[in-house]
Amino acid sequence: MAFSSWLPIPTNSPFSLANIPFGIIQRSASDPPHPAIAIGDHVLDLALFSAHGGFSAISLSPALDVSVFEKPTLNAFAALGQPTHRAVRHYLQDVFRKETPYGPILRDNPDLQRQALLPRGSVQNLRPMHVGTFTDFFAGIHHARNCGVIFRGAANALQPNYTHLPVGYHSRASSVVVSGTPVYRPRGQILSPSGEAPSTAASSTTTTTGPKAVPILAPCRRLDMELELGAFLCKGNRLGEPIPIDQADEYIFGYVLVNDWSARDIQAWEAVPLGPFNAKSFCTTISPWVVLPDALEPFRVRALESPDHPGQVLLPYLREKVERNVFDINLEVSLSTSTHETPIRITKTSSRNLLFSFPQMIAHHTVNGCPLETGDLLGSGTISETEPGTLGSFLEMTQGGKTAVAIPIEVEVAAVPVGSEGGKARKEVGRMFLEDGDTVTITGVCAGSPAVEGCLVGFGECSGTIYPPCAYDY
Amino acid sequence: MAFSSWLPIPTNSPFSLANIPFGIIQRSASDPPHPAIAIGDHVLDLALFSAHGGFSAISLSPALDVSVFEKPTLNAFAALGQPTHRAVRHYLQDVFRKETPYGPILRDNPDLQRQALLPRGSVQNLRPMHVGTFTDFFAGIHHARNCGVIFRGAANALQPNYTHLPVGYHSRASSVVVSGTPVYRPRGQILSPSGEAPSTAASSTTTTTGPKAVPILAPCRRLDMELELGAFLCKGNRLGEPIPIDQADEYIFGYVLVNDWSARDIQAWEAVPLGPFNAKSFCTTISPWVVLPDALEPFRVRALESPDHPGQVLLPYLREKVERNVFDINLEVSLSTSTHETPIRITKTSSRNLLFSFPQMIAHHTVNGCPLETGDLLGSGTISETEPGTLGSFLEMTQGGKTAVAIPIEVEVAAVPVGSEGGKARKEVGRMFLEDGDTVTITGVCAGSPAVEGCLVGFGECSGTIYPPCAYDY
Repeated sequence: MAFSSWLPIPTNSPFSLANIPFGIIQRSASDPPHPAIAIGDHVLDLALFSAHGGFSAISLSPALDVSVFEKPTLNAFAALGQPTHRAVRHYLQDVFRKETPYGPILRDNPDLQRQALLPRGSVQNLRPMHVGTFTDFFAGIHHARNCGVIFRGAANALQPNYTHLPVGYHSRASSVVVSGTPVYRPRGQILSPSGEAPSTAASSTTTTTGPKAVPILAPCRRLDMELELGAFLCKGNRLGEPIPIDQADEYIFGYVLVNDWSARDIQAWEAVPLGPFNAKSFCTTISPWVVLPDALEPFRVRALESPDHPGQVLLPYLREKVERNVFDINLEVSLSTSTHETPIRITKTSSRNLLFSFPQMIAHHTVNGCPLETGDLLGSGTISETEPGTLGSFLEMTQGGKTAVAIPIEVEVAAVPVGSEGGKARKEVGRMFLEDGDTVTITGVCAGSPAVEGCLVGFGECSGTIYPPCAYDY
Repeated sequence: MAFSSWLPIPTNSPFSLANIPFGIIQRSASDPPHPAIAIGDHVLDLALFSAHGGFSAISLSPALDVSVFEKPTLNAFAALGQPTHRAVRHYLQDVFRKETPYGPILRDNPDLQRQALLPRGSVQNLRPMHVGTFTDFFAGIHHARNCGVIFRGAANALQPNYTHLPVGYHSRASSVVVSGTPVYRPRGQILSPSGEAPSTAASSTTTTTGPKAVPILAPCRRLDMELELGAFLCKGNRLGEPIPIDQADEYIFGYVLVNDWSARDIQAWEAVPLGPFNAKSFCTTISPWVVLPDALEPFRVRALESPDHPGQVLLPYLREKVERNVFDINLEVSLSTSTHETPIRITKTSSRNLLFSFPQMIAHHTVNGCPLETGDLLGSGTISETEPGTLGSFLEMTQGGKTAVAIPIEVEVAAVPVGSEGGKARKEVGRMFLEDGDTVTITGVCAGSPAVEGCLVGFGECSGTIYPPCAYDY
């Protein structure tokens, strides 16, 4: 039982001994943030573990630079490179193994356990990495096709370039936040819906493109989520020097879940010709624990083929030697609302629904010589399938805001006749996009690999609650 | 003569006493980079100046944190905020003034002069700031119109949103380099020009969109420049909290010239629907000296009105109280080639040719709550006028690659009759885009303000030479 631990780990925990994801924790607002791992219902504070000799038995050449565990982000640890991540993860797995060769380090050391091994619920997670740059791709082919059908019809659903390269764009790094951070509904320029008088502010606008082209400034009315997988990089390339695809895997530190919140009405008005800008840059939520590639290795599968171009041969710089180039992570999205606090599942799909893998994204990103850097975040693009219940955005679920999704809410039931007992009843309402008070939670778990004795390997939650816009006097 | 110095400053120097721009210098590859100012033909090394008591006479409350002058970038100095920048600039102007009240500090201190006041030609400039994020706008309305005419015809030249908001997109920060850095021609997916057989690599591609949609991987064949002005930020806002337009000026540290190199053939294939990606992220060159807003203050003018929508009233969040909201910087672009080393001027225009100001860009960028950060770089978008000789890109000069620009080259003239003297002659060749060996140099100078006694205030050079792509085995 290679994955049995002396520490009780619930069998349904995504943080089994086969996982060992890294994050940044804080005990209280006045304490310094520390790197940590998640294990079962606990976290191991690596700063305290290291300070008390926890890494004294690790064998690494050159020696492990434990100063990386005193930093407020994982960037320094990431920059040590995959061989070091692998050695540290294996060592920590050994430390927690039931038959650990390092018993005195932690298993038989109640003092260090008390100091460094904390209940997960007692700490707060911070953003695990300083995000250098956030590049978001569009590799979920079903999502691309679903959206294309909505905007252009089935005949032109995919743009001509789509199956030839991983389409991507530069997104905003500074608004990437960790799970649990409030999501403020963005304001922006949106076209006044037909029938509504434009604001007086804009009414004197002389425009030659008709009344539909009169924008107002308003809180977003079509606030959406996007279910994605993200990869953090642990290594950079030099300006001018592309990363060959067969080396691209070495640049990946680990993976997180991503909710790339999107303001569809802002996007519709602003995005031609340079792409989404304010529609995306207000917030992107990531899960707190970075799952290393080694932990996902037992869950590799092959990426999709293009259903439009079966057997399409890619240009050589995008051809991978490995066949199973993506991961089969079970992804779920749940929603709770201000009137229905029990989360209901609205989406269930898998991260295998991609046309391009992260190594392909890296090879394409750098084929022009663009330098990537440690701490860069790559997003997969929205992951969807084709059927209701498998879609990664409300845009798709509602056919572009046309067909409501049924969402249960709880309503007060009046006491009728007077004197009888009132209460709460459940009914369904049609929902097009996200409302204030909604909480969207993404989870991702890999399961069922005999290679890890059926242990779960997962990400925990990527969650955000919608708040009204901040006050703004202008 | 408030702007006379005891240090000889050539009257045609862009680095007059009325300027005092900040940069990062390095004496040799083995020396640490230091913050510095440019003054005439010299630079003042602020690390050495500070270490020898140069700032002992400055009066600031709270006291100046001189540790910022030991850093390898200007970010820490920038983060001190505009009141500090203003005080330091005024103090350094006083130090260099002919009738300086601080004579013993530098004027009468040959030792410190020898250590810290260096010939500008003896040092190398590094990138002045660590670029957090690079956001590129599209505010040059003539450029937008010129390109719109090329791609969509005069009737639809400007997109409907163009005059309502400063259109922008997230660009790539890691490939922003300082003037003088080699520009490697990017490789990328481009559509095989008609008549040329697609590479065998792609020939088995089954595509339903016709032979034109078969991409090849090749070095860019339509490599272009883009003449822009850039602004570095010295302050950030919190997630969710927009920056009101009347406060936006306080967020600007200073200005640089920008050449946003562009691969037009890569862009044409990749940019739908998410905007430019590999077409821009291979390199962006900036000038080395950051010119503070105070230095440009005497050269304020009013931004353009939209010729299509004269008198258009903007939404309130974009309305400025100041009338003269942009700067009149005389911008020139010169080109030298591998066969004609004398630069010839190909463009002359002014930075006033913008529809939106930097404060408007900042207000729009943050209206959705997007957090800006110290070190962020905002680009104006390409600056052009409408006539030949005033255009900021080859795309415009050549009408989209259709009409060649006449570029002089030097050719060897054979000795005819044999025995007579051969030599070099000048002739003109038609040029569509940039060739390997070309050097593009942007300069920007403000002149003629009585407020600064006719002193020049300028940026120096923003220059880059095109090199063939790096080797790439794939």
